[in-house]
Amino acid sequence: MTPAPVAAGRNTKSAVGLSRVGLKGFQAAGIACGIKAAAGAKDLALIYSAVPAQVAGLFTKNRVKAAPVLATRKRVRRGLCQALIVNSGNANACTGERGLRDAEAMAQLTARALHIPHQHVLVSSTGVIGRPLPLERIEGGISSLVGQLSPEGFPDAAEAIMTTDTRPKMVIEQVAFAGGEVTILGMAKGAGMIHPQLATMLAFIMTDAQVEAAALSALLHEGVQSTFHRITVDGDTSTNDMVLLMANGAAAHGALHPGDGGFRPFKEALFTVMDQLAQAIVRDGEGRTKVVTIVVRGAKNTREAERVAFRVAHSPLVKTAFFGQDPNWGRIMAAVGDAGVSFDPGEVSIFFDDVLVVEHGVSAPGGGEEKQRRVLQQEELTVTIDLHAGSSQASVLTTDLSYDYVKINASYHT
Amino acid sequence: MTPAPVAAGRNTKSAVGLSRVGLKGFQAAGIACGIKAAAGAKDLALIYSAVPAQVAGLFTKNRVKAAPVLATRKRVRRGLCQALIVNSGNANACTGERGLRDAEAMAQLTARALHIPHQHVLVSSTGVIGRPLPLERIEGGISSLVGQLSPEGFPDAAEAIMTTDTRPKMVIEQVAFAGGEVTILGMAKGAGMIHPQLATMLAFIMTDAQVEAAALSALLHEGVQSTFHRITVDGDTSTNDMVLLMANGAAAHGALHPGDGGFRPFKEALFTVMDQLAQAIVRDGEGRTKVVTIVVRGAKNTREAERVAFRVAHSPLVKTAFFGQDPNWGRIMAAVGDAGVSFDPGEVSIFFDDVLVVEHGVSAPGGGEEKQRRVLQQEELTVTIDLHAGSSQASVLTTDLSYDYVKINASYHT
Repeated sequence: MTPAPVAAGRNTKSAVGLSRVGLKGFQAAGIACGIKAAAGAKDLALIYSAVPAQVAGLFTKNRVKAAPVLATRKRVRRGLCQALIVNSGNANACTGERGLRDAEAMAQLTARALHIPHQHVLVSSTGVIGRPLPLERIEGGISSLVGQLSPEGFPDAAEAIMTTDTRPKMVIEQVAFAGGEVTILGMAKGAGMIHPQLATMLAFIMTDAQVEAAALSALLHEGVQSTFHRITVDGDTSTNDMVLLMANGAAAHGALHPGDGGFRPFKEALFTVMDQLAQAIVRDGEGRTKVVTIVVRGAKNTREAERVAFRVAHSPLVKTAFFGQDPNWGRIMAAVGDAGVSFDPGEVSIFFDDVLVVEHGVSAPGGGEEKQRRVLQQEELTVTIDLHAGSSQASVLTTDLSYDYVKINASYHT
Repeated sequence: MTPAPVAAGRNTKSAVGLSRVGLKGFQAAGIACGIKAAAGAKDLALIYSAVPAQVAGLFTKNRVKAAPVLATRKRVRRGLCQALIVNSGNANACTGERGLRDAEAMAQLTARALHIPHQHVLVSSTGVIGRPLPLERIEGGISSLVGQLSPEGFPDAAEAIMTTDTRPKMVIEQVAFAGGEVTILGMAKGAGMIHPQLATMLAFIMTDAQVEAAALSALLHEGVQSTFHRITVDGDTSTNDMVLLMANGAAAHGALHPGDGGFRPFKEALFTVMDQLAQAIVRDGEGRTKVVTIVVRGAKNTREAERVAFRVAHSPLVKTAFFGQDPNWGRIMAAVGDAGVSFDPGEVSIFFDDVLVVEHGVSAPGGGEEKQRRVLQQEELTVTIDLHAGSSQASVLTTDLSYDYVKINASYHT
């Protein structure tokens, strides 16, 4: 019943192992209901909490927002949810009034099957834009999903939210408290269009901790800044993205309040989940052969450091040079110079890992193309750019630009 | 002696024919001096005017400016030039103090060979960043070039400024006046990194008209806005770009002043040269299989129309969909929504040529994927996006993103 590719299967197995740790009060399921063309490809996921959970959410800043984004944002503002229904294969974006009705219908069908208020059901979709949702298939799928809900269903759910992802992405962290363990389980989908402002990315994070609404929202906003907002694959942003954080309080410890002793380890575990999901998204970037960390230091302020890091991370010329394992640092200099940030080109240093490549804006003596080339042959590397203009820094995780990126994206729709 | 590929040869021949029209007082030459690795590949060009010409210039806005940009900008400010020496194969960028000395030396060696003041010699370079210029080869080349100067040498010069261009780009326009004809000859190099703000683009335009300095500068600034600044290949901008406009007054007509009857036809001819060069650059974009005009209309103002047009033109997802001939208009909607411009997604229309694809933000009834697909199979097409938010418009000429773009750029340096 699992026709996923080998890589996915391997991941799923390890995730199944992880899921035994027990996220209290949550169940999940993932099935194929026929939205995706490939027979048996999972495309519908359900996550359910035995009791209403506090929820916080962040949504795409794209002006063009998919219907499920609008339906879910409205519900998240009320602060409570008990279920999340997600389909892949169809984004339900640019589908007008019908799309809005379909997103509401997804919530209502799920609510009815679970006997809970539809206001407590969140909806999410990802896939091709502009096609009407095949609602009758989703309707049929929902009843199957409810029957299959299980504490071990998270790997199936993580698989069912994939589009061009090559493997499901799931991370679990636990924190021990006197009253018992708290568990945090996150899943995500990514692949292309990964960019700050939550581009084509879905991330759902569930915890059995008890956290009040305001603290939950603050945690999500803070965590996203250093994780999901610091990754990029192609700089495009999508109509559908959301990050949701749900806390149902089912673990047998007291409520966590900011300032309490237990809050900090919980926060660290949560940020670890977010960081690992963000990294997993980049590692599974469309057609990528490299994972590159761009560190910009010596900037006048963090904002300028970020601008430079993203300008370099988005440059097609830099990204193709990474793919070609080509120590063409001139393209990095050109991208830095094009970031709209003021600095002295004659002061810039660039490192590939710990190999000094550029010093005072020119080729470093003794850097040696061979040493540089060896770093570029690695699957993972860090490019550090020091502007020597201040003391702020920022880093961004990105990919190269390969033949396969073009191949995947030239034919995704058809 | 012309080991250029067939396409280049064909172009060169037609350009030779064109060059017979006679740009008075200018001569040119282009040779191979050994900067490029490929044996016999032309890499050094000289343009010479019998008398000092008025000159206007525009230069890259990249913070990292190549040495020849600095050397030439300084000279252009003085307003006169008599020669232009250009090498390809090496950008003389990020080369520090040595680079500045080398650029000055190129000017001085050329001045000495031509017996003119070095302040009247402009310098330009394009190619790989960060390597010292092989000055001894250029020195040898300059004496050969001076010996080969000829009124028919422009095609050779146009070939010698190429890098990854597949063919030379040269355009000639003439305007008849009572006192005789005025000729305008332009040449350009482009290929990758083409972007507003003159990215990796060199364009040199010579005319035998007599135009005063202020008018020449105003013409250049105005013309660039609707030509070179409205094209994009990959959104990257370079360290070396410049557009130069020289007028030596050798044609036997009176001086052209703005407001005079003859100024308007001259201006139109000049803008035609600039427009055709800009188009030729996009048509020769690295690895492109399509030329796509993005028209944005119904915007609140021109600035917003431009933002949307460039956002769409730079989207890797949109560009790969063009390459795949995939009518995936959802990616266009997502890019429009991501441009930071306010509009009502429910009002947007999108056309592929004259086929209505999106109406009121959703799939147009009866648009038909087959009709859309036929438009996308064409080599040239226009995508029109109507925001229905105002009455301003802008258009941008761009390319698709192909396997070959990745291939060319993965290995350019090595």
